[in-house]
Amino acid sequence: MGRLTFEISMSLDGFVAGPNQTLEEPLGKGGEQLHQWIFGLKSWRESHGKSGGESNVDSELVEQSIRNAGAELMGRRMFSGGAGPWEDDPNADAWWGDDPPFGHPVFVLTHHPREPESKQGGTTFTFVTEGIEAALEQARAAAGDKDVKIAGGADVAQQYLNAGLLDEVQIHLVPELLGGGVRLFDNLDASRVKLETARVIESPAGVTHLLYRVVR
Amino acid sequence: MGRLTFEISMSLDGFVAGPNQTLEEPLGKGGEQLHQWIFGLKSWRESHGKSGGESNVDSELVEQSIRNAGAELMGRRMFSGGAGPWEDDPNADAWWGDDPPFGHPVFVLTHHPREPESKQGGTTFTFVTEGIEAALEQARAAAGDKDVKIAGGADVAQQYLNAGLLDEVQIHLVPELLGGGVRLFDNLDASRVKLETARVIESPAGVTHLLYRVVR
Repeated sequence: MGRLTFEISMSLDGFVAGPNQTLEEPLGKGGEQLHQWIFGLKSWRESHGKSGGESNVDSELVEQSIRNAGAELMGRRMFSGGAGPWEDDPNADAWWGDDPPFGHPVFVLTHHPREPESKQGGTTFTFVTEGIEAALEQARAAAGDKDVKIAGGADVAQQYLNAGLLDEVQIHLVPELLGGGVRLFDNLDASRVKLETARVIESPAGVTHLLYRVVR
Repeated sequence: MGRLTFEISMSLDGFVAGPNQTLEEPLGKGGEQLHQWIFGLKSWRESHGKSGGESNVDSELVEQSIRNAGAELMGRRMFSGGAGPWEDDPNADAWWGDDPPFGHPVFVLTHHPREPESKQGGTTFTFVTEGIEAALEQARAAAGDKDVKIAGGADVAQQYLNAGLLDEVQIHLVPELLGGGVRLFDNLDASRVKLETARVIESPAGVTHLLYRVVR
């Protein structure tokens, strides 16, 4: 059985999205700059159907993560930016069009039932209303030997961390200050979560890739 | 002229002290565990008049920092844990007894005037009531070619960072979650502070030493 992993870009002051998230600016004010390091990488561009890009340690890291993942878990808000009934959600078809970059099954946590959808390139969206454990079970079955990856957002990762289900968290620490927004380490039972440093990689882009193992 | 530097141990969730700081527990609940990595190091023990200890990359880093510093700046609360007039402060003589571990001049930022004090081993305490720039000027004069180091706390570092006076900040990132307390990156004008990664060192103790240069 694969691991349950989570990785995310975080500002030095602990934010994974800036303040004032909107449909136009889903990562909030300043949130986009947390991801600048990834857009020019060969492996990231390939997974998004683009050619070219840099081959370096960052690109290898992203490639490894793509290769290891057999399925993903995703919060409703990350999927569409919305909440509530699907018929009232202006972005109910999500951000990624007909050919999303996942290439494997994605399980979306939601309180509102919806039929599964198959997209091009191997991406399927399955909407799970029975909670995080049921979603994980379905994702594990779909992933086989591969990892199940939490795509985000922070609140979904926090739920799995608090439930003792996460195996690894990788933080891409970006030397930016956002000053506000969504904190990664929030709403956690700090006394119950124990982490140990598994690997540190310094990026040519000034980002530090910090891999932590969850100790049980 | 040396640099103005600051270094501090920070939890993964961004705290440099835990909640409920008291005279008995000046680092707050759980704050002490941020510093476990340093107590066993040869260089730290030497500076505290103790023999033995480990010689490793962590010890070298601490030794370098001790060697580079010619003077320190410190907030009143770090000095004694107190506030207000000195005669009402139960810890007005601070934490370190007659032989403090600094070994050079220390400038304490306070609103309450007080005569300077000389201790053993080259430590002097000078109390500065004219603000952060005056204190820095005095510390620079005392440090000569060496660095002036901000000893803490977080609020003092924030004031120097906001004023554009800090050159370097080193974070010893500890894989602990405190869940509350004093945040390092708080009260900052994030839009005006720009940092770049200067060096990353992985510690055998699982701590990541992150050195950032302040860009002007």
